[in-house]
Amino acid sequence: MARQPYLRINFNRHNPGRSLAVNQIVTAVKDQMVTDNVAPGCRLPPVRVLAHQLGISKNTVQTAYDELVAQGLVESKQRVGLFVASDSKTVTVPAAAKVPPPTCIPLPPNYTSSRRRQTMVNAIDLSSVFIDPELLPRARLAACFRTVVKQPKLHVAYDAQGIPPLRHIIAERLQARGIDARAEDIVTTAGSQQALDIVCRALGCKRIATENPTYEHGKLLFEMNQIETIGLPLDPFYGVDVKAWERIIIASQPALVYLTTNYHNPTGYSYSTSELHHILNWSQQQGFGILEDDWGSEMLSFSEFKPSLRARGGDGVLYINTFTKKLLPALRLGYIVGNPCTTPVLVASKAAACLGLSPIVEAALCEFLDRGYYDVHLKQLQHELDRRYQNCLQLLRQTMPEGVKWTTPGGGPSLWLEIPAWVDREKLRASLEARHVMVRLSDDAFFGTPHLNGFRIGYALLSPEEMQQGIAILAEELKKVL
Amino acid sequence: MARQPYLRINFNRHNPGRSLAVNQIVTAVKDQMVTDNVAPGCRLPPVRVLAHQLGISKNTVQTAYDELVAQGLVESKQRVGLFVASDSKTVTVPAAAKVPPPTCIPLPPNYTSSRRRQTMVNAIDLSSVFIDPELLPRARLAACFRTVVKQPKLHVAYDAQGIPPLRHIIAERLQARGIDARAEDIVTTAGSQQALDIVCRALGCKRIATENPTYEHGKLLFEMNQIETIGLPLDPFYGVDVKAWERIIIASQPALVYLTTNYHNPTGYSYSTSELHHILNWSQQQGFGILEDDWGSEMLSFSEFKPSLRARGGDGVLYINTFTKKLLPALRLGYIVGNPCTTPVLVASKAAACLGLSPIVEAALCEFLDRGYYDVHLKQLQHELDRRYQNCLQLLRQTMPEGVKWTTPGGGPSLWLEIPAWVDREKLRASLEARHVMVRLSDDAFFGTPHLNGFRIGYALLSPEEMQQGIAILAEELKKVL
Repeated sequence: MARQPYLRINFNRHNPGRSLAVNQIVTAVKDQMVTDNVAPGCRLPPVRVLAHQLGISKNTVQTAYDELVAQGLVESKQRVGLFVASDSKTVTVPAAAKVPPPTCIPLPPNYTSSRRRQTMVNAIDLSSVFIDPELLPRARLAACFRTVVKQPKLHVAYDAQGIPPLRHIIAERLQARGIDARAEDIVTTAGSQQALDIVCRALGCKRIATENPTYEHGKLLFEMNQIETIGLPLDPFYGVDVKAWERIIIASQPALVYLTTNYHNPTGYSYSTSELHHILNWSQQQGFGILEDDWGSEMLSFSEFKPSLRARGGDGVLYINTFTKKLLPALRLGYIVGNPCTTPVLVASKAAACLGLSPIVEAALCEFLDRGYYDVHLKQLQHELDRRYQNCLQLLRQTMPEGVKWTTPGGGPSLWLEIPAWVDREKLRASLEARHVMVRLSDDAFFGTPHLNGFRIGYALLSPEEMQQGIAILAEELKKVL
Repeated sequence: MARQPYLRINFNRHNPGRSLAVNQIVTAVKDQMVTDNVAPGCRLPPVRVLAHQLGISKNTVQTAYDELVAQGLVESKQRVGLFVASDSKTVTVPAAAKVPPPTCIPLPPNYTSSRRRQTMVNAIDLSSVFIDPELLPRARLAACFRTVVKQPKLHVAYDAQGIPPLRHIIAERLQARGIDARAEDIVTTAGSQQALDIVCRALGCKRIATENPTYEHGKLLFEMNQIETIGLPLDPFYGVDVKAWERIIIASQPALVYLTTNYHNPTGYSYSTSELHHILNWSQQQGFGILEDDWGSEMLSFSEFKPSLRARGGDGVLYINTFTKKLLPALRLGYIVGNPCTTPVLVASKAAACLGLSPIVEAALCEFLDRGYYDVHLKQLQHELDRRYQNCLQLLRQTMPEGVKWTTPGGGPSLWLEIPAWVDREKLRASLEARHVMVRLSDDAFFGTPHLNGFRIGYALLSPEEMQQGIAILAEELKKVL
């Protein structure tokens, strides 16, 4: 049985710090009973508790309590404790008020629908961008965690910027890919999502332009941070409409342009070299900052050679990336690469947001990279994902009816499958769901009515057998309406 | 030697998804060279890369490239690759523009000083609120990490609210202490700091009242989030000035009052029962929300019985707590306890901020709690911290000159040591630093000029021997000026 909580009494004003004598304790308790209008029946601190708190002997406290009992202010109940006497002259305090909960901000109108979890058991998820857990290096990661969790220096400190050895190893890897990155300019984050939030906080920007459609959690973040967000229409079959983008950028004058240049989510599109150059030139002419999300560039083989905005445009381009999709979603580790102007504010913004991330996870990732496990893992992963991508293309070519088209991104976790505009995607989704095949329509990733009528096909999560089954069912359902 | 990055060419508009014939590849490359004004000398995608991307044979790509060479548009350099011919009719693209970095928000004026790291080697840190790493259960935590990191289901999913088993176990523990908490209302956070940030985001509040002095990283967060922050003066020797607080609250009408009710940082003060009741009543009368930070309540023995605002005021009180200071700073795990009205917005706000935390760390903590390790650890820790607290009180009583006073918080990691107002603390700090003893003046935790002239003495980090040495030096320096 839990005991009634005892009264907290403030003894600090009586001979602060020095040992209290019996009469000082008596005075303190009496003072408190008067100034606080203590209710009869309230429990006093147990003798051992008060003796401990004040650093004095239990005998002294007991003697003081005996005196209070003798004066009739306090009564003792055997084995239960000491209580304010029921006939003491103090006034009864009313029971504590129940406090009303504080008011919250309204959620964006589309919030519920976009968060709706599709929780079908044993369904084939055709639209996932996650990697098959079977392909993840669990044993090697466990070994890294085992090593670092024993290091005492990791336990009591955390670094708002991220632990230095991890930042160094990330910088080296980026430099090897032609990306200007110094360890001093890297800030670790809880995935790409926190990276986006930290950049928004540090820049304080009020207007952002990004692809339409865009990464839907990013869009939601901008909305919740009350940032006006402008869509730059992207069609993964035709790429950037250079003239349209230039018109929109000049008209809306965004402070920042946020672009996913490799394997854009949800379309799977990768920018052409010429498109990257247009964006860099507009940035110079129009004076907007660039935030490049390069989440996918290490996902498939050959991708190492793909240029990025940061590689082309220098360290003025803010660059974010994550290990979530390539190594282990459960690490929740990504990073921002800033430059001498922005990094101090990025670090301050991250410190304000969370002080720092778990150095255990940071150190485990660092160990994983340092032992060369990541390179081995990437090579194996790339080989398997290449195979799955080829398998997916082959299945689509074998089964898809006329009128259906898809992109050939060559990498990343997903391609875009487009069906004729007159096919009702929501009906198709429902008929697939009835057959335990899931597709995500990504409508929340668009600004306004989607200009595409398709969805992602992800090939990183499903085994070739599951993919074959899923695509076969999709083809059957499409043939019913085409 | 890293090769020059190859041109990214968009092939999706040509017979999308279907196999490309030789002439279609030739057309696509020619199209791209014209529309993109490709510069002579640009490298084309290697044969194997393009064959992989398009899912076609290398022979088809090679034949297309041979045709481009035959037409004089492309030239082959042995062992290096295929390049846009130097005499092609295309226009040269200027080198990519270097992009200027985006502009950041200004940091608060006191930012540099408050972040100044005191990095003395082998110094005795008398003001730390951290726990001695020697007291941390490293081996048992390593065992928990080892167990959970092997669980496949943890690897590909994360829960924005925190993994359910951890939320259940936290709720049970809180309920055992009389605190109204359901697993559905718990949201895990990266320590108390992210908890504060998430609450600020979810409530969208523009004015907060908090103790003066207050948790300094919280104060900085409010400033950086552009929240007006009102100080409620707290003197750890006299407690809450009820009339002054009421006056300030009525005049300023804060949307939220943020209070650290147990072992307040930096003063070490714990609220009296009567003070808790005043605050709950004002909340009802004035209509402000309450955010209670209960970080310290499990830190010393006997503290289980201390009432909290949440226990007294019901689930309308938002409650935050953390395992950082009691278990392992490197976990960076805390939580918010909301209620049915606020929890959905708290979860949405956390999802916007970071999508979710590492479920590996959450699961390791859950395992640690579930195996009963935490209770064993707390008991051992409390025993040792009790001993250190008593030792600290004894040392102060033995050594401190007249005029110096200190509080007897009875628990937590620190007490407040106050020296006469005419003693220059900055000079004292410098003279201590010269003798390798560190104290933190916490000036950034105050609103305006500090009304206290003291600093924290932390007894959780230092061994009894270090504490004795540190206090002896402090006493010697104080005696020089008193």
